[in-house]
Amino acid sequence: MAVQNSIATILKGWDHRREGDTIIHLVSELYPICRSITGDGFRESVRRLASQVPIETHEVPSGTTVFDWTVPKEWNIRDAYISTVSGQRVVDFKQHNLHVVNYSVPVKRRIGLSELREHLFTRPDAPDWIPYRTSYYKEDWGFCLSQRRLEAMTDPEYEVFIDSTLEPGQLTYGEYCVPGETDSEVLISVHSCHPSLCNDNLSGMTVAVRLAALLTGLNLRYSYRFLWIPGTIGAITWLALHEQHLGRIKHGLVLSCIGDSGRFTYKRSRHDTAEIDCVVEYVLRSSGQPVEARDFSPIGYDERQYCSPGIALPVGCFMRTPNGEYPEYHTSADDLTLVTSEALGESLKQLLRVVGTLEGNRRYRNLYPKGEPQLGRRGLYRLMGGTDNDDLERAALWVLNFSDGRHSLLDIAERSRFPFDVVAHAAERLVTHSLLSPVNAGVTDA
Amino acid sequence: MAVQNSIATILKGWDHRREGDTIIHLVSELYPICRSITGDGFRESVRRLASQVPIETHEVPSGTTVFDWTVPKEWNIRDAYISTVSGQRVVDFKQHNLHVVNYSVPVKRRIGLSELREHLFTRPDAPDWIPYRTSYYKEDWGFCLSQRRLEAMTDPEYEVFIDSTLEPGQLTYGEYCVPGETDSEVLISVHSCHPSLCNDNLSGMTVAVRLAALLTGLNLRYSYRFLWIPGTIGAITWLALHEQHLGRIKHGLVLSCIGDSGRFTYKRSRHDTAEIDCVVEYVLRSSGQPVEARDFSPIGYDERQYCSPGIALPVGCFMRTPNGEYPEYHTSADDLTLVTSEALGESLKQLLRVVGTLEGNRRYRNLYPKGEPQLGRRGLYRLMGGTDNDDLERAALWVLNFSDGRHSLLDIAERSRFPFDVVAHAAERLVTHSLLSPVNAGVTDA
Amino acid sequence: MAVQNSIATILKGWDHRREGDTIIHLVSELYPICRSITGDGFRESVRRLASQVPIETHEVPSGTTVFDWTVPKEWNIRDAYISTVSGQRVVDFKQHNLHVVNYSVPVKRRIGLSELREHLFTRPDAPDWIPYRTSYYKEDWGFCLSQRRLEAMTDPEYEVFIDSTLEPGQLTYGEYCVPGETDSEVLISVHSCHPSLCNDNLSGMTVAVRLAALLTGLNLRYSYRFLWIPGTIGAITWLALHEQHLGRIKHGLVLSCIGDSGRFTYKRSRHDTAEIDCVVEYVLRSSGQPVEARDFSPIGYDERQYCSPGIALPVGCFMRTPNGEYPEYHTSADDLTLVTSEALGESLKQLLRVVGTLEGNRRYRNLYPKGEPQLGRRGLYRLMGGTDNDDLERAALWVLNFSDGRHSLLDIAERSRFPFDVVAHAAERLVTHSLLSPVNAGVTDA
Repeated sequence: MAVQNSIATILKGWDHRREGDTIIHLVSELYPICRSITGDGFRESVRRLASQVPIETHEVPSGTTVFDWTVPKEWNIRDAYISTVSGQRVVDFKQHNLHVVNYSVPVKRRIGLSELREHLFTRPDAPDWIPYRTSYYKEDWGFCLSQRRLEAMTDPEYEVFIDSTLEPGQLTYGEYCVPGETDSEVLISVHSCHPSLCNDNLSGMTVAVRLAALLTGLNLRYSYRFLWIPGTIGAITWLALHEQHLGRIKHGLVLSCIGDSGRFTYKRSRHDTAEIDCVVEYVLRSSGQPVEARDFSPIGYDERQYCSPGIALPVGCFMRTPNGEYPEYHTSADDLTLVTSEALGESLKQLLRVVGTLEGNRRYRNLYPKGEPQLGRRGLYRLMGGTDNDDLERAALWVLNFSDGRHSLLDIAERSRFPFDVVAHAAERLVTHSLLSPVNAGVTDA
Repeated sequence: MAVQNSIATILKGWDHRREGDTIIHLVSELYPICRSITGDGFRESVRRLASQVPIETHEVPSGTTVFDWTVPKEWNIRDAYISTVSGQRVVDFKQHNLHVVNYSVPVKRRIGLSELREHLFTRPDAPDWIPYRTSYYKEDWGFCLSQRRLEAMTDPEYEVFIDSTLEPGQLTYGEYCVPGETDSEVLISVHSCHPSLCNDNLSGMTVAVRLAALLTGLNLRYSYRFLWIPGTIGAITWLALHEQHLGRIKHGLVLSCIGDSGRFTYKRSRHDTAEIDCVVEYVLRSSGQPVEARDFSPIGYDERQYCSPGIALPVGCFMRTPNGEYPEYHTSADDLTLVTSEALGESLKQLLRVVGTLEGNRRYRNLYPKGEPQLGRRGLYRLMGGTDNDDLERAALWVLNFSDGRHSLLDIAERSRFPFDVVAHAAERLVTHSLLSPVNAGVTDA
Repeated sequence: MAVQNSIATILKGWDHRREGDTIIHLVSELYPICRSITGDGFRESVRRLASQVPIETHEVPSGTTVFDWTVPKEWNIRDAYISTVSGQRVVDFKQHNLHVVNYSVPVKRRIGLSELREHLFTRPDAPDWIPYRTSYYKEDWGFCLSQRRLEAMTDPEYEVFIDSTLEPGQLTYGEYCVPGETDSEVLISVHSCHPSLCNDNLSGMTVAVRLAALLTGLNLRYSYRFLWIPGTIGAITWLALHEQHLGRIKHGLVLSCIGDSGRFTYKRSRHDTAEIDCVVEYVLRSSGQPVEARDFSPIGYDERQYCSPGIALPVGCFMRTPNGEYPEYHTSADDLTLVTSEALGESLKQLLRVVGTLEGNRRYRNLYPKGEPQLGRRGLYRLMGGTDNDDLERAALWVLNFSDGRHSLLDIAERSRFPFDVVAHAAERLVTHSLLSPVNAGVTDA
């Protein structure tokens, strides 16, 4: 109960502006860095996040076999532009790192416009925005630019220059674990490979690190493992290198796109009714916020890997507006104006409530299961009959009746329609009076 | 089938006025008695109910340990009042037994108004009604009175007098069993400890005894055990003393608040879909009466004890307007004007239909399960083809197809949308022609 | 996949008018024949259907015990009429074979009108139509006529003449099997005993034979067994004589009343969610046609026998307007004007889609279940990141994620909301790249 109470205390003293501003500050600091699935941009991002908690940086050599995949070469970039023959830059990596197709190989040459066009990407439907493109697994080069910029390019020839390297190196990821009483773990995973895109996924990267900071030092039941990894290849790499470890992971969440002002969206794990699914749905439903819960699908972010049939971890995806469902997605318009302090702070707050509920969601066994125990003589029941029960008395009767080792406190809250906190408080009092004992106290009850 | 037919005969000749009036007469006779969870008022009530069937009275000594509880001292009361110093009674137990807090210890003294007020209970929201209060497990005394009466009490001092005793004695309960072919039992339990309150629960006490009377002498499959017990402590006591016996109880109902004119309300057993739940819901749905069925909750009457997790009997609660949901509940307004002959008679009638359905709700095995048996040569099917089946032919086909040992006749009725009686009649004809044989004929099929 | 593709090819080249007209031609050819549950009319009907595929004719002797039944005597009829005493035919079998109660014994006598009336059957609610009546299991005779004709019969006496025989002989049925790769079978059963009635069931008889013709020569996974049998006694006879064979039948359909213009109606098998039920419901729902699916009931045609509890095959009933639910049912108005080329052709088309879906509805096992396999290097995934997946990529991810041996492709189609064909195509590509392997490849996965 200690941790629930600590979290309740944090939530009680919640300073929305302060928490949101801390996150926005981090987002702003990380925004200009050109990240990719490997390379110095990723390393530098993890280093800056480590201002909040001591994140460990791990490096996995290019060429390492990870399940069906191979860790790719490391990519780094220093400069890139398209210029007129007279040297005037018309597309400049230094102005916006989305201008270069991520993982572009080096190039330096004069090129005719029509050939160049095959290497240029725009979004004609959103003519002012620069799209985001990658070419991780096919060696190629290209530039992304606004449709308007493209239309202004009328010279017969241009100079193209990309000062990048694609060489054997490392895949980098950050890992941090808040230890709990048991080695049962909750996994929080954020893809951290996108360059200057705020909602996708600087929002997830920064909220995760603040959640880690707030949990650090609390007396937790579960251990909480945070991963800042490149999308897809990073999740596959971590899973392949930690296969022996996976049995410890009891619950998990992927965080993505949680800084915009859209409603919360929860995508369930492949299990659909895993405990994490029930907890997140309960927390969001009871948050007073608009919420959508949807079934698992294998289209999305790293929940695809965690929920692949041979891994099958109970990992859901916690979002606001999902990837692909807001117009600014994967364009330069996913910038600092799309994410708000308010939204980021609220996302963090609801994640803290998820942790609090998960921590408190035990199963108990009623130690006096034959008839009701006499609550009155223990001071747990009004002594004057003929009047109504108060909520705590009613909640205690629910907890006693359904604490048969099968129902969790959240199950009892859902069934009784009492708030989880009231049910948990009733359970705490019953434990204090030795009427209830936790099932499988050390670890989760799965 | 004999018993179903007997019950059908009783229902056919049903004289609503006569049955209702018999019950109302009993309610009126019992109304003035001051009952409590122990004592002479309870004994006298059982004695009067025994005019209908030979109820056995059982006595359990104070101090007996029953699960987590102890049988309390026996309480008896002869007189009580508050009078002015000059001897004028302003609150008088002899006018209404709700005036004394049930289980009040003896007192006789002069007392200042402000100290007295701490012992006075009113319902300011219903200023003409006397509330009902008890103090079974804390030795105390008090008076209940209308808010108007309280407001008229302006003297500086009063005399208070309660001529009660609270001494080692007995807890009393009444028990009556209608024997059936098997020792599988249906439990009917009514709390009988409330003083002058008609709907809660003279209605249950009297309807139960009339149901017992009507079942006596019928050729029943189940045995029917009726209990008139004090609420909570009585159910706990009976369960504790009969733990070895509980395996026999296959179905059960608590009856409470069944004399008012509100719609029927059925609270399911903790199993939610126990056979008794299906039967009562079917009977009420098909009664043409307005009906509400609700899930089990551990707030209510003695179903709390029967459905505690270590007892877990399939016992539902049969009500009209539930306790706490009508304004007169637990006040002097729950009097003879709240209950009607019509409502009491209808409650009895529906309970008889429950018994009839439960008795007839067997599982059968089709003895010719490969293809249909040839019904025509047995006179069970029209011989001219090309025309439609009649209802009894159709019902016979349903019974044959689903009599695989798993489906009860009620399951078949629900699935086919034929009335239970039609399905049961079809089954009877098939049994007569040796096409069907009952599964586990002697006892219930659980 | 071969067969699915063959069926896709047939459907692609579908000539609605040609297919419908072929069936209508068969219906017209069979319409005048006086069929019954035995006899030469049945034999002749099978002989004519055999113009399409080489149907085998089987004969079972009268008196053979089949489960609870006995194969009846064989009935044949040459002529029948009611005439005036002066020899004028007022009711004439040669005008319409419904005029004679099917299975009427021979009679030749003069008879008074009032006695004759006991042998006459009309439909007063449809005064122009001749009803259809049978008396298979009670030796009797009778005539069916329009109510108007009856009202015009005012002579005191008439001559009745029925030139029939009812003698030991044979019960005839037709059987044809399209062999597949495995001996797992799909059963298609049509009752073929009704005389001049088009929708019930010349529609089923003729669509079945055309389906058989179209499947012949295809490279099928399942074997398809077609039965043209007399209703009830025929199904019972076939089941009784092939009890050892029933384990091979994995799916089945009864076809009846599929030539009218009403919406499709599918009656589920007794299993309710058998694979055949899921397949037919998917096919009809995705057909763009109005559709009703309803639960199994033991009232209807031969699904009653196939779904009897001791046989319990997963056999549903594929219909348009069900028996008994259109006014012309079992009257002379169920004639060539009630059935249309359009409706018959569409019924055949949807049945072909059922076969295609059933054939393709395998379960697979993902051979790279840990994380996603790298689809990009196999050419199964776009190489430029940042853009959306196309449908085939998405469908491949669904197939990989849910190919855990439990989910069939149809399950995956339903869950992903992709059309079955897209899911099946994605699966085919994954099999080609050795990412997927069929579960229990040889036979069905039940």
